[in-house]
Amino acid sequence: MAAVNLMPQIFKTVNQNVEFYKKLLKEAVAIPSISCDVKHRDDCVRMVHWMQGKLQEIGASTELRDIGFQTIDGKQYKLPPVLIGILENDPKKNTVCIYGHLDVQPALKSDGWETEPFDLQERNDKLYGRGATDDKGPVLGWLHAINAYKAVGAELPVNLKFIFECMEESGSEGLDELLMEKLKPEGFFDSVDYVCISDNYWLGTTKPCITYGLRGLSYYFLEVECAKMDLHSGVFGGTVHEAMSDLIYLMNQLVDKDGKILITDVYKSVAPLTESEKSLYTNIDFDPEAYRKCIEAHKLPHNGEKEQILMHRWRYPSLSLHGIEGAAFQPGAKTVIPGKVIGKFSIRLVPNQEPEEIEKLVINYINKKWAERGSPNKMRISAQSGRAWTENPDHPHYQAAARATKLIYQTDPDMSREGGSIPVTMTLQEASGKNVLLLPMGAGDDMAHSQNEKINVRNYIEGIKLFAAYLHEVGKLPK
Amino acid sequence: MAAVNLMPQIFKTVNQNVEFYKKLLKEAVAIPSISCDVKHRDDCVRMVHWMQGKLQEIGASTELRDIGFQTIDGKQYKLPPVLIGILENDPKKNTVCIYGHLDVQPALKSDGWETEPFDLQERNDKLYGRGATDDKGPVLGWLHAINAYKAVGAELPVNLKFIFECMEESGSEGLDELLMEKLKPEGFFDSVDYVCISDNYWLGTTKPCITYGLRGLSYYFLEVECAKMDLHSGVFGGTVHEAMSDLIYLMNQLVDKDGKILITDVYKSVAPLTESEKSLYTNIDFDPEAYRKCIEAHKLPHNGEKEQILMHRWRYPSLSLHGIEGAAFQPGAKTVIPGKVIGKFSIRLVPNQEPEEIEKLVINYINKKWAERGSPNKMRISAQSGRAWTENPDHPHYQAAARATKLIYQTDPDMSREGGSIPVTMTLQEASGKNVLLLPMGAGDDMAHSQNEKINVRNYIEGIKLFAAYLHEVGKLPK
Repeated sequence: MAAVNLMPQIFKTVNQNVEFYKKLLKEAVAIPSISCDVKHRDDCVRMVHWMQGKLQEIGASTELRDIGFQTIDGKQYKLPPVLIGILENDPKKNTVCIYGHLDVQPALKSDGWETEPFDLQERNDKLYGRGATDDKGPVLGWLHAINAYKAVGAELPVNLKFIFECMEESGSEGLDELLMEKLKPEGFFDSVDYVCISDNYWLGTTKPCITYGLRGLSYYFLEVECAKMDLHSGVFGGTVHEAMSDLIYLMNQLVDKDGKILITDVYKSVAPLTESEKSLYTNIDFDPEAYRKCIEAHKLPHNGEKEQILMHRWRYPSLSLHGIEGAAFQPGAKTVIPGKVIGKFSIRLVPNQEPEEIEKLVINYINKKWAERGSPNKMRISAQSGRAWTENPDHPHYQAAARATKLIYQTDPDMSREGGSIPVTMTLQEASGKNVLLLPMGAGDDMAHSQNEKINVRNYIEGIKLFAAYLHEVGKLPK
Repeated sequence: MAAVNLMPQIFKTVNQNVEFYKKLLKEAVAIPSISCDVKHRDDCVRMVHWMQGKLQEIGASTELRDIGFQTIDGKQYKLPPVLIGILENDPKKNTVCIYGHLDVQPALKSDGWETEPFDLQERNDKLYGRGATDDKGPVLGWLHAINAYKAVGAELPVNLKFIFECMEESGSEGLDELLMEKLKPEGFFDSVDYVCISDNYWLGTTKPCITYGLRGLSYYFLEVECAKMDLHSGVFGGTVHEAMSDLIYLMNQLVDKDGKILITDVYKSVAPLTESEKSLYTNIDFDPEAYRKCIEAHKLPHNGEKEQILMHRWRYPSLSLHGIEGAAFQPGAKTVIPGKVIGKFSIRLVPNQEPEEIEKLVINYINKKWAERGSPNKMRISAQSGRAWTENPDHPHYQAAARATKLIYQTDPDMSREGGSIPVTMTLQEASGKNVLLLPMGAGDDMAHSQNEKINVRNYIEGIKLFAAYLHEVGKLPK
């Protein structure tokens, strides 16, 4: 088939298969592959097997790689396997390595979802369901894009290698070791020319972007124990040093009301802001007022100034208090003195903050505050961290993705960064030694990790075309 | 049957039915009648029906009284009915009104239970299960005591009226109205001479007691909202005023590390400690070191002094931080910025703290601290409270219960108070205008509300005998 006709043909076949694409996403969303909850470990394994079947249907050779065990509270749980796929191996073509994840964040209807989170529902041209945009929609997007080439009888423009894991929402446990200590030595990355990840979002809701930077993540578990079991607050209240009041005291030392992190020296290694970087933010298409309204916040910090908001999402660290494990969390009036509580907080890391350095600062700070507290209870803190990532957005790979984006959306994409973290991005950059690119499918209001996560039908369908066009453009890059 | 032989005969029949008593408690525990969780509302109703059947089997006339609806988050849920029973109505006999509750606190094996919480298991002469001691064991104790009279062919020494509710662990919602606005005007209490409640515990593990005082409870729901939904901490971290940091700030203003309440004037109305009251604590059988070891606390407050510990359990208020609704509570590393969080804390009230006065102090204090915070988020606080209760322990009713206790345990019981709250106690005192007594069945280490709640087989079985002997002694009091 003549290349000149190829893209229109592919777009036509995508348009003809919309209902099938929705159906397949509904199937994927129905598997509650919640990686942070070991009770759903079987669902995670089921999800990996389901996707393996799909890769096999498009002709990929696949392999499930065992990545060992996870230790929780001293107990060992088997990690879900990582799905590896290889589709074609033509030495004349470029090879693209695609990464995606099959696991999701927890979700309960009672958290405030308007639909059942694991039953994909279409409302007003939006597909609601946990994982719809993060990351089951994009993962299926690759599958559909490849199928569209087959449907029109065209050759694939590139060779493909797939890495689909099911622990991304839980720190990608076991994946780094698989990539660096197994796949890399085995030569898996030798033929890889480009790496592409679609696990992120547009900045807003109308303009596409390509992402060249991510913040890292340093996550903390702060444990205080006052008794070996929970206690009745009537019987024991007034006669124990309560773990909760110690934990609340420590958590209150971390950040001020405007989001300024109070940990000593934590801003010290942040890359200085140059005049040239500063000017970049002015041209980005971003409306802070729309952003505020979308989440119904009363007021944004930093006076709601566009450049400040963008910089605090992308290039400055932030600290969030996520919650407390072991305390009462149910509705109603539970009268318990928790015996052991674990406070959860995390810092989003930016260039040039090193995870080891930040962990050390946090742990020293907590130890100092704990000593000041003078409580007889037991305190323990542990951390898990991943570095921030940036890439060169002037690379031909980014230009190819920009051409593909313009073909679909008739506008030049913003070159943007993101506040979130995808731990594997940095590892894939190191393992392959090649240019890594983040190509978002979903929109900025998709509410990944929140209630009512969705993907717009438009983003899903045009995203499939985008992926097909991206593969086409990368196929044209010099080998 | 001659009265002189009655008690030994009854004790003999109780000893012969131990396995049956355990079986019935296992049945009751198997119904997860968790009142604070509306998902278990059907189980609560089932539990009430189950108990209604048991009362009918002993010949009581019963009635289920509708107590209307409960509003949670603007939605209405039907409350479980209150079970009323009447057994005999001989004008020559005293009438005892028995109160108990059929609902339980939440429990999950994953909270740290060694057995399935809703499957009663015997280990080392202890019966483990949620509700075993609080309050299904004692409620069944009354049933078994009455049955024992029937088994030996003896007449009941008193008339009985029963009030069994299924919302005690959730503030006895709807019960006060039923008692004061329905049952009292209808004349239900006109014939009542004494009120007895068994919903409490010995102070320690060996010496029985009778309880003449309880602390009240003032429970607070402190809500902060920063966004209409939960947010991804990568995408939004640094660009919202987070509700969690505001809530943690407020919760940190309530109590210091030694348990001293920081709310302005909260100690002002506490009844002054007289020399004669002070001397009472010296003679109580209580070992702070055993108490500390039982919960595996590192160190007790108040230097672990016996009198101080007792006074802080019974006659001084305490404030406990219970937990946070709406924040991450699962194991693992959830990276969410909660949109709305509700902090839960409560104050145990003592004579002469009036709930309305304390609520006003707390709400004023929180409003003041909130103004100092200067956050743009929304804050709201609400309360539900019940007054502290004391009774005259020199009353003939208490002497009758003391004689019954001595008959079973061969020792004079301590006259004690308790740190916990049973909201209905005060209402029953008001509704009946009669002496109210708390007659504990369980031991001080039964761990009501905690993991591994249990009742000792000894306390359960001797408790049945105690209840039978108590009815006998009250039957001898002048009409």
